[in-house]
Amino acid sequence: MEGEPTLRLRVFDLNCWAIRYLSKRRQERVRLIGDTLRREGFDLVLLQEVWSEQDYSDLKVKLASCYPFSHYFRSGVIGSGLCVFSRFPILDTLLYQYSLNGYPYMLQHGDWFGGKSVGVSMAVTAPLLSLSLQLHAEYCRDKDAYLPHRLVQVWELAQFIRHTSKAADVVLLGGDLNMHPEDVGIRLLRGWTGLHDAFAEATHFEGCKNGCTLVPDNCFTDKSELLPFPLGVRIDYILYKAISSFTVKCEELKTTMGPAPGMDIPFSDHEAVMATLHIQRQGQPASATLGTADLALADVVTEARTEVGVGLRAAQRQRYSSGRMAVLALLLLLLQAVAALGTLAGLGAEQPFPKLSFCLLAFLALGVLVLATGLHLFHTMEVKMLHGTEDQMWMALRALQERP
Amino acid sequence: MEGEPTLRLRVFDLNCWAIRYLSKRRQERVRLIGDTLRREGFDLVLLQEVWSEQDYSDLKVKLASCYPFSHYFRSGVIGSGLCVFSRFPILDTLLYQYSLNGYPYMLQHGDWFGGKSVGVSMAVTAPLLSLSLQLHAEYCRDKDAYLPHRLVQVWELAQFIRHTSKAADVVLLGGDLNMHPEDVGIRLLRGWTGLHDAFAEATHFEGCKNGCTLVPDNCFTDKSELLPFPLGVRIDYILYKAISSFTVKCEELKTTMGPAPGMDIPFSDHEAVMATLHIQRQGQPASATLGTADLALADVVTEARTEVGVGLRAAQRQRYSSGRMAVLALLLLLLQAVAALGTLAGLGAEQPFPKLSFCLLAFLALGVLVLATGLHLFHTMEVKMLHGTEDQMWMALRALQERP
Repeated sequence: MEGEPTLRLRVFDLNCWAIRYLSKRRQERVRLIGDTLRREGFDLVLLQEVWSEQDYSDLKVKLASCYPFSHYFRSGVIGSGLCVFSRFPILDTLLYQYSLNGYPYMLQHGDWFGGKSVGVSMAVTAPLLSLSLQLHAEYCRDKDAYLPHRLVQVWELAQFIRHTSKAADVVLLGGDLNMHPEDVGIRLLRGWTGLHDAFAEATHFEGCKNGCTLVPDNCFTDKSELLPFPLGVRIDYILYKAISSFTVKCEELKTTMGPAPGMDIPFSDHEAVMATLHIQRQGQPASATLGTADLALADVVTEARTEVGVGLRAAQRQRYSSGRMAVLALLLLLLQAVAALGTLAGLGAEQPFPKLSFCLLAFLALGVLVLATGLHLFHTMEVKMLHGTEDQMWMALRALQERP
Repeated sequence: MEGEPTLRLRVFDLNCWAIRYLSKRRQERVRLIGDTLRREGFDLVLLQEVWSEQDYSDLKVKLASCYPFSHYFRSGVIGSGLCVFSRFPILDTLLYQYSLNGYPYMLQHGDWFGGKSVGVSMAVTAPLLSLSLQLHAEYCRDKDAYLPHRLVQVWELAQFIRHTSKAADVVLLGGDLNMHPEDVGIRLLRGWTGLHDAFAEATHFEGCKNGCTLVPDNCFTDKSELLPFPLGVRIDYILYKAISSFTVKCEELKTTMGPAPGMDIPFSDHEAVMATLHIQRQGQPASATLGTADLALADVVTEARTEVGVGLRAAQRQRYSSGRMAVLALLLLLLQAVAALGTLAGLGAEQPFPKLSFCLLAFLALGVLVLATGLHLFHTMEVKMLHGTEDQMWMALRALQERP
């Protein structure tokens, strides 16, 4: 960017909802996304939920001429679903996996299998650190069992950004954060990293009301989920931040509004977010201005820490009950072993030994033992991670309070 | 460090081998370590394998007066075992978990349960980024099945250091890397990050020959493992690197030599490594000098990538065979279901139905199905991560070759 006073950067972000066999009209939509990206010629494209590597490869071939650089982030059982296409060379990539991401046994909420992660790519423009990510989904807003996991993810993400962003001039984050703008997670992320919300800062906005990205007008959205929010919800974001001697301004923000331009279907069940950013080199390095809102930030961290604490106690209860179940199953097995040995020794020989029900019971106990032990291990890890995050948040609070 | 021309930093690093119920004379040794740390008054203490939080708490109480700041990194089922004690305030901590860390079913090699990770702490002296870590153990040097996993860990660690270190003035890494100095992993780590080896750079050295940290003179080491290396091996390191306008020099490096000074037992089965570093502010920022050895570095990355490729193919084979086993178990279950239905429908009623063996077989098939499916999922994740690392290494190679 040296010698170039202003860089105009056009960014595209979309949760593509491209799950093989499950997402409706997937191939048609992926084709449509590819055509639009080729026609529009953005500078940087951040996609989520591209679960099939074949879809990524098809997009890569189609977009090779206008986005010569791309990367697909592999992780988890079915992949991270994250990929990035760029007009500028991608110098380096890094994948950060959240330590917690739902439960493997909640098969209907497939988050765990996705190995959700932050895909980080360093583009050569300036050094631009761009992050593409998705956080754990919210399945029930009133009784959100995954809130502590999502807050651990937000905290890890924020810490990660704080630690990695010093190498960059501009940090750009695009993704499906699965949180409303006023939720504690978003406030924590913005407060702790100093990231700006492109929607709030945009000089010019065009798109769904309030910048919503999950709207009833979209034919693929689940209407019942959106009942409490007749206008829709905003859960996909483009956030940015300038480091060192740069300034970033959001000139324009757009969202798609249901059907893709000139087509009868939308790109996805989410709306795409498109931002035009102006990046300019300043005369002198900007000083860190985080300190101004320390008190408000301390409140947000305290609120998040309380929620993580609630999750910690729930995880401790689950760890305890799965441990107890494992011990009971073990006791039952031991009892059976004693009974079997007794029979072999000739005790109670006057009655026929109930072989079949004995076998069934033994296998049942064994199954419960294996399952409960697995659960116990899993919840032990969960407790460790929630506890660790609570600790880190406490350290952050202390640092905030001790600041002059 | 402003206004202070030279900082003398004394660092202590030790793999404590403090596994509850398994490590010999654990409590005695932890007490001894605590006494020595209190007496010697280091600036920074990086400990590994402190698996019991109780041991950490005891150390914390004992060391509160001379090391007022400390942190224990929680992760995995039994914790990361990593902790840090510091004379200077710890501003921030971060835990990075490796994506691969052995196999959960290799119970005799407990690495997976430790959730091995890098504990990163930012100390206030300069900004000093100190990393405490441990990589996957090597159980058999000739046929090292874990080499690809360890290389993935080294790569992730190196990438992590590259991305986070820009925020620091000095990076300091201490830990049990489970690799010999000339191993590809060490060469990759040093080459890709620019870290210096305190042993190689020290002006003055005192300790075991060649800086070995696993020596036959230590009464806790497994002598049979050290048979091919009569002098011992060096697998514990202190590495460092100055960023921006600082220089770091290693004035002195020491290792313990078996028994702790004035005692009849050593601190651990590993020797402790102690370095005295001189950190000085330079007049002008040092330029990055990584470029000088690009060709040699490309060779190292290629070598590491080959090893990761070997691991990838092994993981693919295991994924395939576990998948096939799961399919076979499923087929057997289906066959049994057909047989059971047939019997219920009155076919073959002239022969008695072998209930017991039928039940046993069904449970066996079910067990195999569950186990094989679990293995298949696990190896699928392994394949993804190895593939992802191979990709990243390829990108690094391309970047190295394209450099002017």
